[in-house]
Amino acid sequence: MAIPHAKPGEVFDIRPLGPALSQTRTTTLVKTDSVEVLRLIVKAGTEIPPHSVVGEITVQCLEGSVDFRIGSDARILEAGQMLYLSGGEVHAVRGIVDASVLVTIVLQRGAK
Amino acid sequence: MAIPHAKPGEVFDIRPLGPALSQTRTTTLVKTDSVEVLRLIVKAGTEIPPHSVVGEITVQCLEGSVDFRIGSDARILEAGQMLYLSGGEVHAVRGIVDASVLVTIVLQRGAK
Repeated sequence: MAIPHAKPGEVFDIRPLGPALSQTRTTTLVKTDSVEVLRLIVKAGTEIPPHSVVGEITVQCLEGSVDFRIGSDARILEAGQMLYLSGGEVHAVRGIVDASVLVTIVLQRGAK
Repeated sequence: MAIPHAKPGEVFDIRPLGPALSQTRTTTLVKTDSVEVLRLIVKAGTEIPPHSVVGEITVQCLEGSVDFRIGSDARILEAGQMLYLSGGEVHAVRGIVDASVLVTIVLQRGAK
């Protein structure tokens, strides 16, 4: 979708989407050379299969809840909870209750 | 305060503090070589004078509201709102309503 990324200093909203969540797709809110911020939509029952990214990431549940697995180690992340991961850690996400999740990726110089 | 930083994969809470805010101090939640996450307490009427950091930052209001100034350009940041700043941008923060603010700082390699 052609939603423009925020500019420096521009205020954007990350309040819970509520009923609008079901009509919303994952969006990139910020993208610069050193950081990327996504609002990830993870509907109940949907799975993002195991993957990793080069840099460190923070993961903040904005609404709903997800099952967040790091390797074979699972934990539940609910609205108002957060974690971070070292670069390269393989993780997978599965929606328990329709969720939106704010993901901040620290981009490594020289990495794609 | 001797609150240990989170470890990779460890879930931590960033729900609004509510009445506990007045007894809470700014804390560093995550600190690694490439990223630092702080929960900044900004009480109503308190001012963090103009300053800048080397790397890019994201600023998310978790509760309350602050007046956020970039140079001479002011905007209000309320709970559920967010912005990012390029590295080196001079900014200042003043509490309007007792607030806690999640600040994520992308640390630049080689910078302090």
